[in-house]
Amino acid sequence: MAPQRSTPDPLLLRAIRHEPVERAPVWLMRQAGRCDPAYRSYRDQVGLSLHALFRSPEHAVALSLLPRRIGVDAIIMYQDILTPLEPMGADFQFSPGPVLDEPLRDAAGVMRLKTCDPPRHLAFIGEEIRALRRELDGSLPLIGFAGAPFTLAAFLIEGASPGAMARTLAFATEHGQVFGDLMERLTRMTVDYLNYQAQCGVDVVQLFESVGEGIPRPLYERFVQPSHERIFGALRDGLPSILFVKGSPFPELMLDSGAAVLSVGKDTSLRELLERGAGRIAVQGNVDNRLLAQGKPEQVAAAVRACLAETGGQGHILNLNHGLLPETPFHNVLAFVQAARTARLPA
Amino acid sequence: MAPQRSTPDPLLLRAIRHEPVERAPVWLMRQAGRCDPAYRSYRDQVGLSLHALFRSPEHAVALSLLPRRIGVDAIIMYQDILTPLEPMGADFQFSPGPVLDEPLRDAAGVMRLKTCDPPRHLAFIGEEIRALRRELDGSLPLIGFAGAPFTLAAFLIEGASPGAMARTLAFATEHGQVFGDLMERLTRMTVDYLNYQAQCGVDVVQLFESVGEGIPRPLYERFVQPSHERIFGALRDGLPSILFVKGSPFPELMLDSGAAVLSVGKDTSLRELLERGAGRIAVQGNVDNRLLAQGKPEQVAAAVRACLAETGGQGHILNLNHGLLPETPFHNVLAFVQAARTARLPA
Repeated sequence: MAPQRSTPDPLLLRAIRHEPVERAPVWLMRQAGRCDPAYRSYRDQVGLSLHALFRSPEHAVALSLLPRRIGVDAIIMYQDILTPLEPMGADFQFSPGPVLDEPLRDAAGVMRLKTCDPPRHLAFIGEEIRALRRELDGSLPLIGFAGAPFTLAAFLIEGASPGAMARTLAFATEHGQVFGDLMERLTRMTVDYLNYQAQCGVDVVQLFESVGEGIPRPLYERFVQPSHERIFGALRDGLPSILFVKGSPFPELMLDSGAAVLSVGKDTSLRELLERGAGRIAVQGNVDNRLLAQGKPEQVAAAVRACLAETGGQGHILNLNHGLLPETPFHNVLAFVQAARTARLPA
Repeated sequence: MAPQRSTPDPLLLRAIRHEPVERAPVWLMRQAGRCDPAYRSYRDQVGLSLHALFRSPEHAVALSLLPRRIGVDAIIMYQDILTPLEPMGADFQFSPGPVLDEPLRDAAGVMRLKTCDPPRHLAFIGEEIRALRRELDGSLPLIGFAGAPFTLAAFLIEGASPGAMARTLAFATEHGQVFGDLMERLTRMTVDYLNYQAQCGVDVVQLFESVGEGIPRPLYERFVQPSHERIFGALRDGLPSILFVKGSPFPELMLDSGAAVLSVGKDTSLRELLERGAGRIAVQGNVDNRLLAQGKPEQVAAAVRACLAETGGQGHILNLNHGLLPETPFHNVLAFVQAARTARLPA
């Protein structure tokens, strides 16, 4: 059953559709995370592992909603990109980063992967989304998300946070056919998973290519780009979509991905991207997350204004280059949101 | 002693300086190579290993000059990018690709590298260059070259043709300081080596970043770009220079390298590069080498004309995306050169 939307035109959705906005919408990747004292104290109180939190709709809902009090224009569901890999047979534990007992290292490992059926295996995520919709009641749009297939493959092959991805790049280059089979399985899963989220009620989905900047161009062209195009081409009709590629090394390829919004790193010009997208594409980003970790609130506010000045605030979702760093002082997060909400757009 | 130049303005040098040309100069990477029947028969006759040929000025001169008969506008010295690594302690053998007995795998390996003093250790290359100048006698410009530091590092670490460079990327990411030390040593050697070539009489130098397309952006920014800038900033005053990066994944960084000419892959727009270079930068390339290996002569000629049409033939050295493939039918090489020499430029 498709959920009803009580507010027809939240700022975020208008920005995605390139409709005029009175100000650019703002949210932050990892806005429900360790830099928020309320997040840390919630986690201390419940005392559960990350693994358990991701599988508890009650706690995931509470954590997703924490940033509502600081004035963001979207809520993103609290979840981990690795969660749908568990029903495929890869159960990551967190200690504190994700660790897999048996990394995937050969064709047999790919063959052993099972099919993830989201309504059956990830019902707790569906429940989280439906509860979030009820809580939000149309006041704010809800963002769902998934890890992109290459990023998931890198976690599976490295068996941990990928770093330089040495094994992954070697695997993809030397065993292209097996790697292609792995990408195929992960791509199909990702399509099913995102469409399941849409069916449960998310307003927007974001695909996270979190290892994007470390991917050499030949592998990006051979494996990454086709997976993005497949996924954005297979989403439910009209589902607004965001492609995040960390560091955005090849923005011109992102333009062909089929995503409605491109979320890019700090070295990619938002203005140029908007121009090249010619009104088809909105942009998201791209204030440096290190500035929020290390700078003063005035510097954060100035960076927000400079970022908005670059685009004129239209077709632009204000965000970071990538996720908030855990050591970020929370007053800088507040300064970021406040600067975005009070910035004057050109008439 | 600076050599005298009897023809003051060869086509190649005018194109590099963005001076008007009646037609775009043409040469081909690996023009003295296995696709030329004369090259194969010469090698059969002398029966020497590649290792020995690179160290024999007599044979290296004869092989360098073979393409003169087909009408190219430049001669590139016959040599290997790995040759200057031998005096540093890394003696590659060819069987048939380059193989190193003891790949460089740790800080101790970096510390063991010796300093290469080109006039002392590479006198046979100086002799090759001086003999080539005498033979050419100003009729054609002579191109010298070196492998770029990251490419050399990849050969040293992999101990063979780098492929996916899994070990190299892991080394550079996980042991950044040691890798930086290695890059520093290779960068200093490359500056000395190219300036030695200039002193012996080459008219132009080309830096080959032959593994360029496989380098992820963060490593490119941290290690590759600074090495290019260092090298082009340290060349003898006024020495014309070409930067070749295979596949040119980050052309906007190449624009800041300090090279006079950018030699790019087939997916980089020459026209856009010329525009962004704003008259400071010439371009080289970028007909697909696979077309020469697999296509018909008419298709090769058409691709040459299309490539020249993109730039108008000014500030453009016609060449390939990268080296001629060994299996290329020689009639396609002839068609390439002929099409370039007879193409009409816009008035």
